[in-house]
Amino acid sequence: MATEVDLSEYIIAPDPGAARLTRAVEGVDQNGEVSRISVVEERPLTIFLNSQEIVTAMTIGDYPEYLALGFLRNQGMLRPDDEITRVDYDDDLETVVVRTARETSYEDKLKKKTRTSGCAVGTVFGDMMEGLEGVRLPQVQVRTSWLYDLAAKINRTPSLYLQAGAIHGTVLCRESRPLVYMEDVGRHNAVDKIAGWMLSEGETAGDKILYTTGRLTSEMVIKTAMMGIPVLASRSGFTAWGVEIAREVGLTLIGRMRGQRFVCLSGEDRLLRDVDPATVPVEDRKHRRKSANGS
Amino acid sequence: MATEVDLSEYIIAPDPGAARLTRAVEGVDQNGEVSRISVVEERPLTIFLNSQEIVTAMTIGDYPEYLALGFLRNQGMLRPDDEITRVDYDDDLETVVVRTARETSYEDKLKKKTRTSGCAVGTVFGDMMEGLEGVRLPQVQVRTSWLYDLAAKINRTPSLYLQAGAIHGTVLCRESRPLVYMEDVGRHNAVDKIAGWMLSEGETAGDKILYTTGRLTSEMVIKTAMMGIPVLASRSGFTAWGVEIAREVGLTLIGRMRGQRFVCLSGEDRLLRDVDPATVPVEDRKHRRKSANGS
Repeated sequence: MATEVDLSEYIIAPDPGAARLTRAVEGVDQNGEVSRISVVEERPLTIFLNSQEIVTAMTIGDYPEYLALGFLRNQGMLRPDDEITRVDYDDDLETVVVRTARETSYEDKLKKKTRTSGCAVGTVFGDMMEGLEGVRLPQVQVRTSWLYDLAAKINRTPSLYLQAGAIHGTVLCRESRPLVYMEDVGRHNAVDKIAGWMLSEGETAGDKILYTTGRLTSEMVIKTAMMGIPVLASRSGFTAWGVEIAREVGLTLIGRMRGQRFVCLSGEDRLLRDVDPATVPVEDRKHRRKSANGS
Repeated sequence: MATEVDLSEYIIAPDPGAARLTRAVEGVDQNGEVSRISVVEERPLTIFLNSQEIVTAMTIGDYPEYLALGFLRNQGMLRPDDEITRVDYDDDLETVVVRTARETSYEDKLKKKTRTSGCAVGTVFGDMMEGLEGVRLPQVQVRTSWLYDLAAKINRTPSLYLQAGAIHGTVLCRESRPLVYMEDVGRHNAVDKIAGWMLSEGETAGDKILYTTGRLTSEMVIKTAMMGIPVLASRSGFTAWGVEIAREVGLTLIGRMRGQRFVCLSGEDRLLRDVDPATVPVEDRKHRRKSANGS
């Protein structure tokens, strides 16, 4: 397994050096001495669908168009067959307007909300579960060697996560190749940005793996399934509902991935163990990422 | 500093053994062998204010009444002077109804939402900032010895966080004593449960410290300030907006607390350094918690 990560594999890699994404702030440390550290930016982005204001999302602000598209798609406000006519981002107003050929009105949807561990704004809880009813995830094979390679590469990829903390990352992958690595202050923003990118690029989902640094909550599982991606993996832990939903929709769910270890609580039938776990290198402590919440 | 934590100090301590809060699930590990692990529960709780359905929150389900009260309070739907006449939790329907003497109607508030890194459902972003305008946080003194003691005690307190992962904890403290330790799948649920407890008990805020395992985002800072608590600390990192808001409202903000180290980016004037950091024990690796996202 490669010890250095080849960033050229990425279509979109994190850009921790991007000036807009972090800010240097000055404070004091435990000794009262000046401490100058880098903290991640967080800005409001107001998303409109046609003429209707939908939500204001706090985001690091790197991919506002993808965030808007992905958010609307994952909330079910953009349908798979919708023709998107324009996406306009105004940096001064910090707004994105997504326009469709179809007339839209989501007054009712906006009245009922579900606050999940992240927040599925604008979606009734029942709607969330209904949205999964038509989901059929393909019975693709997933080699464990790919999972180990991906975890190793992603853990070594320079990112805001590693540099400035306070942020979640989610990576769209195919086989052993990480493709699109999105980060944001909100776990669900990172996933939505990936969904927005896939929508923009017309990218297929059934051949992909989604890897996240975050916890495998019900909302993460629901979004992954709705995006049509059959495999979700994380170094972090699970929630019982996330596991239940994964089993209901037939998603392959892998958590607590560290070094050679992992636990698969759903969709084990997709796994092809093509490498002896004992040969997987122990995690290099220097590169080891912290999991969310000690899981 | 104590090496064992005295759980009797807590008014409410985590109850990781509570049967309802976790579930044993079975899957397979990397070797294809059966793996039986404990995962945290996550259930929907629908919150009503008088006759109006407000939101459905995904929660571990341990303190539904406190969650409802605290959520409504932190969203500004319950005012400080409101007379709460009843709080009814129905376990079968998984709903909580909070009733007030005052008639309420939040149609407008519910239409505009702010999705923050967690989610301030039902609050217009502008409203969130306005809600802070009247906030005056007391100029209390905070001894660094208290912060070190709290961190050590909290890190050693058995919790779902340590046991099952996938969960955030926030602890209401006074001086060096942890009082109320709430956990939940959503960081903001944990804070809301504390707010709900404080409301129920008529507890003062100005003499308290809020300690969280989560990131110090703008929403965490806003909630802490709106609760009237002048100090917020975490082992995790900051966001730029969180720092800005903390400075605007005069909140003492301390992050990256590990062992003897910390960074204070706001409200340093409250800190009284009454102990030499070099005497603070290095973190016991066995008890060390993971931070959110490597910060």
